[in-house]
Formats: sequence, C-alpha cells, structure tokens
Amino acid sequence: MGIVLGPNQYGKAENRVVRIVRDTPRHEIRDLNVSTALRGDFAAAHTDGDQSQVLPTDTQKNTAFAFAKRHGVTSPEDYALALARRLVEATPAATGARVLVEEYAWDRIVVDGAGHDHAFVRRGGEVRTTEIELSSEAAHVVSGLTDLTVLKSTGSEFKGFLKDEYTTLPEADDRILATALTARWRYADRGRIEWNATYAEVRALLLATFATTYSRALQETLYAMGRAVLEAHPDIAEISFVAPNKHHFLVDLAPFGLANPGEVFIAADRPYGLIEATVTREADDDG
Amino acid sequence: MGIVLGPNQYGKAENRVVRIVRDTPRHEIRDLNVSTALRGDFAAAHTDGDQSQVLPTDTQKNTAFAFAKRHGVTSPEDYALALARRLVEATPAATGARVLVEEYAWDRIVVDGAGHDHAFVRRGGEVRTTEIELSSEAAHVVSGLTDLTVLKSTGSEFKGFLKDEYTTLPEADDRILATALTARWRYADRGRIEWNATYAEVRALLLATFATTYSRALQETLYAMGRAVLEAHPDIAEISFVAPNKHHFLVDLAPFGLANPGEVFIAADRPYGLIEATVTREADDDG
Amino acid sequence: MGIVLGPNQYGKAENRVVRIVRDTPRHEIRDLNVSTALRGDFAAAHTDGDQSQVLPTDTQKNTAFAFAKRHGVTSPEDYALALARRLVEATPAATGARVLVEEYAWDRIVVDGAGHDHAFVRRGGEVRTTEIELSSEAAHVVSGLTDLTVLKSTGSEFKGFLKDEYTTLPEADDRILATALTARWRYADRGRIEWNATYAEVRALLLATFATTYSRALQETLYAMGRAVLEAHPDIAEISFVAPNKHHFLVDLAPFGLANPGEVFIAADRPYGLIEATVTREADDDG
Amino acid sequence: MGIVLGPNQYGKAENRVVRIVRDTPRHEIRDLNVSTALRGDFAAAHTDGDQSQVLPTDTQKNTAFAFAKRHGVTSPEDYALALARRLVEATPAATGARVLVEEYAWDRIVVDGAGHDHAFVRRGGEVRTTEIELSSEAAHVVSGLTDLTVLKSTGSEFKGFLKDEYTTLPEADDRILATALTARWRYADRGRIEWNATYAEVRALLLATFATTYSRALQETLYAMGRAVLEAHPDIAEISFVAPNKHHFLVDLAPFGLANPGEVFIAADRPYGLIEATVTREADDDG
Repeated sequence: MGIVLGPNQYGKAENRVVRIVRDTPRHEIRDLNVSTALRGDFAAAHTDGDQSQVLPTDTQKNTAFAFAKRHGVTSPEDYALALARRLVEATPAATGARVLVEEYAWDRIVVDGAGHDHAFVRRGGEVRTTEIELSSEAAHVVSGLTDLTVLKSTGSEFKGFLKDEYTTLPEADDRILATALTARWRYADRGRIEWNATYAEVRALLLATFATTYSRALQETLYAMGRAVLEAHPDIAEISFVAPNKHHFLVDLAPFGLANPGEVFIAADRPYGLIEATVTREADDDG
Repeated sequence: MGIVLGPNQYGKAENRVVRIVRDTPRHEIRDLNVSTALRGDFAAAHTDGDQSQVLPTDTQKNTAFAFAKRHGVTSPEDYALALARRLVEATPAATGARVLVEEYAWDRIVVDGAGHDHAFVRRGGEVRTTEIELSSEAAHVVSGLTDLTVLKSTGSEFKGFLKDEYTTLPEADDRILATALTARWRYADRGRIEWNATYAEVRALLLATFATTYSRALQETLYAMGRAVLEAHPDIAEISFVAPNKHHFLVDLAPFGLANPGEVFIAADRPYGLIEATVTREADDDG
Repeated sequence: MGIVLGPNQYGKAENRVVRIVRDTPRHEIRDLNVSTALRGDFAAAHTDGDQSQVLPTDTQKNTAFAFAKRHGVTSPEDYALALARRLVEATPAATGARVLVEEYAWDRIVVDGAGHDHAFVRRGGEVRTTEIELSSEAAHVVSGLTDLTVLKSTGSEFKGFLKDEYTTLPEADDRILATALTARWRYADRGRIEWNATYAEVRALLLATFATTYSRALQETLYAMGRAVLEAHPDIAEISFVAPNKHHFLVDLAPFGLANPGEVFIAADRPYGLIEATVTREADDDG
Repeated sequence: MGIVLGPNQYGKAENRVVRIVRDTPRHEIRDLNVSTALRGDFAAAHTDGDQSQVLPTDTQKNTAFAFAKRHGVTSPEDYALALARRLVEATPAATGARVLVEEYAWDRIVVDGAGHDHAFVRRGGEVRTTEIELSSEAAHVVSGLTDLTVLKSTGSEFKGFLKDEYTTLPEADDRILATALTARWRYADRGRIEWNATYAEVRALLLATFATTYSRALQETLYAMGRAVLEAHPDIAEISFVAPNKHHFLVDLAPFGLANPGEVFIAADRPYGLIEATVTREADDDG
C-alpha cells in the first residue's frame, strides 16, 4: 500500500500534582501541571494493536505522582528531568521523552505582618514553565513563563511603516503597549544550573527591560528583552517569545465635547497582533 | 390572551474601560470591565417594537467610556454610582439601573528597586468587584472580590457528618482545604465610605481569618470570615460567600512502597463541593 | 453581637454523569452535568463546626451516580426530580433541594446511511438544561436550553430609539441580528409532562419564531418567541430569556474602493448588548 | 556580542470575518476566524526599530476583510491562498506567509420542514480548519478539523500492555473510548482540489472508520482512520492526529448494592491520555 506510520508520541497530559513539604511546621507548596509523552518504536501498537511495548499513560501518571514523593520537587526542572529519565528507562522501546511542567505560584498569607506557616494564597499572574526533551543523546531544558501581562502607558510609538492600498492605520507617536508574554529559554549544556534563581533573574530582567526600553515596535522591545537575557546569562543559549499585541484603542470622546489625550482606552480582545521572535547566539558562540 | 411581559432589563455588558491618569509623569492605571443595565417601563419595545423610550446599549457604552474621563475612576464604586445615576437620568422610562464593575489590579514594574512611572505588570489573583443597584428609593452598593484562591495545607478536618446508605467518605482528621473565594458585601447606608481602603481591609481580614481559623468544615470557615468582617466594619450590613471546595485528594502511593503522610495530592477539577452562605446582622441591628 | 447566619446552601457541583443504556446491542447515551444543593437548618455546621446534620457533598455525588443506575435517565427532569427527593429524604435537617442538570446531545455516527449501534458524535450547539427546586410544598421544574446561537442576515432593523448627548449610533434599516440564547421555562403543575417531547417542541418553536419574526429590536423578537411558546404550551407558566446581542459590525471597505452592501462583517466579542426578559401569564391565568 | 535575531514572524490573529452572500433572497453565510503572519527579512524592525519594511498587522486585518469581498469565500482554502499571496506581494521583505482559518458551520433554521432563506443556527461540534504555508517555492495546504468529539460505548479494549513497578491499571476487555479529535491532512500538489467536497468526505470517513474499527488502543484506531483517508484520497499526502483520550471511568456502585456492567461512568477532565500520530505515504509513493 505504501502507507506507513509517521512521527508519533503518547502520554498523559495535565496531571495536577500538588506537593506539600511538611517536614517542619512551616510548610512549602509546589503546585504543578505535569504532562508526559514517550517517543520510540511503537509501530506495533498502531498497526497491529499490540500493546506489549506500551507503558500505559496511567502508569506515566502514577510515576508523575510517585516521583513528587520519591524525588521531590525542588524545582520543576529537576523534577521533570528525573521523571523523563525514569519513563525512558521503564520503556525499552522508547528513544525519548518529553515532560512539560507548568507551575502555579502561591504566596504565604500575611497575618500580623508575617507569612503564615501553612496558609497560602495563589499569586496569579504568570505561570512558570519547563519543557524537557530527553533523547538518547542529550537532555534539552527549555524553561520559561507564560501569561506575564505587561503594559506601558507611554514610551511607545509605531510609525514609518510600509503602506499599501489596504493601509488605513495612522502613525502613532504615543500609544499604549501591552502584551501577555510567553517566553521560553533554552539552557546550554554547561553544567549545574540554579533553576529557581535563574528563573527569578530572567523574569526580573524581562520586566525591567520592557519598562525601560523606548519602543518603536513590539518587535524591538522583544529583541531588547532577549538580548538582555542572553547578555546576562551565558548558560542560556537562546530565548523565544510569543507576544500578542493587546491593542488598547483610544476612545473618540470628541462627540461628547471631551478631549482624550491618552487617558481613556478600550481594551480589545480580537483580533490582536501576534509577534513571534527568537533571539539567539551566533553559531560559533554557543560551542 | 393573558400573556404579558414580566421582569426585564437591558444594557451593555463587558465594556473594557482602561483609564490612565497621566497628570504627572507618574501614571496611574484603572482597568475595568463595566456592565450596565436599565429597568423600567420598556414594554412597548417588547410588544410593539417601539424604541422611543429605549436608550441604546451603544449609548450606554459611550457613557461608560465618557464617564471614565468626565467623572474619573477614583474607585469602582464612585464611578459606578455616577454612571448609574446618569443612565437613569437620561432615560425617562427607567426606574432603576444596575452597574457591575470588575477591576483588574496592576503593579508597577520594579526597576532598580523602585516602581516604574509608566510600566505595569498585571497582578493576577482575585478580581475586585462592585455592583450598584440604583432605584428611585436608594442606591445599594455591593462590593466584593472573586477568584481569591486560598489553601491551607493543614488545620482542617471533616468528620462527625451524617451518613446514609450512599456514604463512603472516610472521616478526615487532617486534609487540605482550598477554595476560589467569591465574597460580596453590602454596605449599609451610613454616609461616606472609603471604598479603596475598606476593600483592602476586608480582603486582608478574609485572608487572615482563613489562615488562623481551625476548620471543621468550609462552612465554619466562611462563617468565621463573615463574622470577622461584620465585627470590624459597622458600615457593612451583610456579606455573602460562594466557595467551591477545590478538592485535593491524597494519592495512594502504597502500591509503590511509598508512604504519603499528607505530601502528594491530586488537585481535582470536577465535581467540586459548592458552599454558599450569607452572614448578616440581626434585623434590629441594621436600622 | 447581633451577627447571624443568613441564607445558605451546599452541595456538589458538576458531577459528570454518563449513562449508557445497553440492554440491547443498540446502545443509548445520556451525558449529564449534575449539580445538587441542600437547604435547611445547617446553622450548627457554620457556627459550631457540628457536621452531624450535614450529608456530605461526597454522598450527594455518590447518590447522583447511583441514581443514574437505580432510577435511570429517561429525561433530565425525571432523573433530577428523583435525585432531589432522595437527597431531602436522606437529610432530616433539609427543607429543600436544588438539582441542576445540563445535558449534552450526541448523534449516532452514520455508516452506510444508517446510525451506528454504539458509536456517537457529540452534536455541539445548545445544551439542554433543567433545574429542580424542591421544597416541602412543591417541586418546581424549570427546563431550558443555553447557547443556542442563531443569526438572521436580514429582516432586522433598529431605529426610532431615544437619543441623548452620548448617542452616536446611526439608525439601522437592515442589520445582522445574532444571539446565543439562554431560555428557561417553568412548568405549571398540571400533571404529567412529556419532558423530552416538550423540549423538542419548544426548541423548534423558538427557532421558527426567531426566523420568521421581522425584528425591530431583540426585545421584540424575544417577546414573540416567548408568546409563541406560552400559546402553544398551556403547561408552561412562564419563560425567561437571557440574550447577548452578538454584534456584527459592517466593515467599512470604502477606503479600498469596495462597496459593502451587507456582505462583510466583523463579529465582535465585547462589549455586547445583554437583553433579559420574561414572558408570563396574567395572574388569574395561571391558577 | 554574537547575539542575533533568529526565526520570527508577525501578523494579526483571530480576525472574525463573517461573509454573507446575498445575491439572491436565499443567503449564504461563511463564518471565519482568520489569522495571518508574514516571514522574511524583518531584522531591522527588531534591531533598529525600523518599520519601513513592515506591513502593519492592521493592514493585514484590513486585507483579510477586504478579500472576503474582493475574492469571496467559496472555501476557506481558496480564500486563505488568495490572502497569503496578496500579503506576500504587498511586502517586499516577505519570503513567506502563513494563513490559518477556522470555520464555524451554520445550518438553516427549519420552518415548516424547509430551511429558511436568511435565518441560521450555529451547528456546534467540530470546527473546520485550514492552514496555508506560502513560500517562494510552494504553497502547502493543510486542512483539517478540531474538536470532533466521538465516543464508542463498546468495541474497545486495552490489554497486554507493558507493566512496571508503577503500573496499577487493570486490563480492560470492554471500555468506553472517547476523544475530541483534531485531524490535519496535507494535500499533495496534484492540481485542482474540490476543497468542500473533500472536507465532507474525509470527515465522513473518519467517523465511519472510528465507528466500525474494533479498538485495541486509541493508537490503532487513529492509524486505521488515517489509512482509510489516504487510501481513498490520493491527493492527500499525509494526515496527523492529536487525540486526547477522554477517560470515562466506570463508577463502583457495589457499595450501594448495585451492579454496574458498563452503564454508569464518570467523565473525567484531567489528566487525559494524549495520543499523537501521523499516517503518511512511503517516500517513493508521494512523488
């Protein structure tokens, strides 16, 4: 027939693993959404219904929960690496695994000025992410964040752009710039990384660069953010952004006898600009 | 025919009003979702298609944006009250208006240890709400919050409950208690309220009471939270809660030779417990 | 203190009950989302943490699943009524129960022109609903549907409306009218109802009336739909609508040298009009 | 520094284009969600804030709406191809474009047994998709559907799988198999395709194959579905699936004295199995 199986993978998605560390009265919480997948020679399962090489997705789920105890969760990255290695080891036909983790942050509830021992409030805002790609050759770690929603109420323009017969957009000297940022950075393999500290530093650097860069386009802002991260973190090989341009349109209040010098906006849902860019190192710089 | 029009209202929902205050280089932002509705004698629009007494929902939208400039947004409550009064005044057939506002909080981005003048990051977490019910007799203000997600990793039990032939739940001496709280408190009409300060105080009190109350059921915790608010705020007449019991089930790790003394949980989506309760003042106490 | 418990209820929300009838090779499927709540004297649970009168929400869940077998699901209404009665019977402190059911429709997959015995495709579109309010005096049944999304590409105008200083909307002689309808109709207590047949008839009548009524406002269309239902169904006491006016704005193509006589629209998300109306019978007509 | 711009693209996402064909009293409707993106040499916009080669996303939006009139929408594929070509032509720096279209289906409302001329009800169920990748060499068309939710109440087993120390899943002789299918098929470049007819045929074939294939795993079912499509459609080069295994767990009713021979299930949300597979042609078969 000439019809064959192409790329495939299978796993268990969105295991909601919550790990409480209660070795002392001052508890810690890690709140994760874990997805696993295996790749390898699983052709027989597809073509003949033969499951003998298939580690069930239910087992993958059990392993995700068991490893929250057995290995612990000091960082999403270390946990995900351990989980990926286990899944490949347990599955002779597997040549690789992918583990994705989202982490939701919690703060201690403040009582009389101090953080409570075992009561927490979910922080909201961005979600921390990590993605492990484990193959027989290497383990790639791509960490990141999603839904970091930022806005500048000035310091942003958009002008000098290409125009064609369908262009009606006026040039803007001063506009709101807002996005719900997704950033993903791939670590170079240079030895031990302090995952949690690096995450906090990259997040702070992204925010500060967004704040302090005069923006002539969201593209320019993203590039500046990426460059700042790569300059500060030699163990990061590249960083990618997906950034919806969340439009805030100035409302025309003139019909009501009101000026509107950048004060009242309507936040639009759809459509939105969508800017995607990777900032990377020159080839011979990553060796 | 004996068929008649019953209760009805109409308006514009989810106007995404963003107000920047830029009188100085240090900008402020108020980010609102505003819904308006009018009630009154609009029977002719329903039965005869006669729109002569109908202020269009498009006009209601325009008014919501214009008032963000004309009246400003020092608090959602003051803005919503002004908007409700305007809509009723502009519509002779109206006998009342309802205005709902959700407010999304933003923090200044921190650069070199200080909050930036015009760059912000959305805080996430709970949404502040207010609901104005304006009638010819009175203006009721119900303020609140929604999606305040809290969790206690100990200090919660559930036992001694009623059992029937469908009961399989074991008693729990120590469990996770978590909810995504919605609270709505109605202000008594006692003169000027400091809306923003009161909001912050109620929020802090809800959190602290949740943290410090040993819980024998979510019902008991909610009642304690409500009582604390009413005791501290004589200008609040009553407070209502809607609290999904976000179940965290202890995972059985015994098949894998692992103990699980309250350390690894699966956070469940559905079904969830749903607890609703109002805490109020005795009738002669509210006069 | 004068602080007391006000209205309250508790239960288990969103039990995803799927019932397969497999008495013959030609299976049937009922796919439900069931929420239950109990009301009554549960003050001790709130004020003293005393659960002795509290039938756990976990038990309510078990009962919902057990009744899908014991009672069966010939209609959401009959199932919900039986479940509500059981929950009140099992709970001495309860004075009433509320049971909400959403039903998702499935069609048989067509193979060689005939519906398959045991393979189904989810229909999508509207969700059928029912809500039982059981008290010591009566059982109220409110059935309905939600998310019935309908659109007329002509036969709709909006003009002659009230204007004020914030009105900019032009009159429209011909516009798109679209809504995602929620309708809820309350049955009078007149004896046995054919729940499934009545649902199908009401749905068809709502659609046909929407299609064939020239619309001078969404209000007029809703009233006509309600009247048609009440006229055809003496066992329905009243019907309520919640109808977002899903705006479709004509796109201005003139800058591109193109006419746009009602052909190209942008479907807007927010804000949207929100029209709510009840059509009922005169008081002496319902006795 | 050795820091450079990597892969990037930009565009306007989720333009909600609604096209009414009203050349005769019997209207037609096409309801689309259109996303566009351009790729090429846009480095200056990133590194220097130079927009002179950047066709604004606002212009891309205008073009999407204008082309719904100028070109029309006889199929999502033809419309998207025309739009992609226009965007590349209008942008000298562009080397390629991606256009994604989702289409929402509407049915005519039935009145007195016949479909109405200009009143429609949204069908619900699956969304039709197409994705155009236009480069200087070729235009790739990948059509598909998403959220086609199907279920078999018998004819599915899962056994003989690999077991390790974390495996607790019992073997299943008879289970519910359900998924919300996403399928994407790439057309070979063999000349004129009847896009609408092919879509309908592939959809019907996917459903029929799902229904009639005894399933020893979701993998096997997907492979059978893919093979059936490739066998019937020589102009389709390959087909990919993303299929969440929507678990339906048999509820244990034994504590209540009830048997449950495959009759009552709980439909679970998370976690879910996630099976991804491509079925393709052998290399020399596609030439």
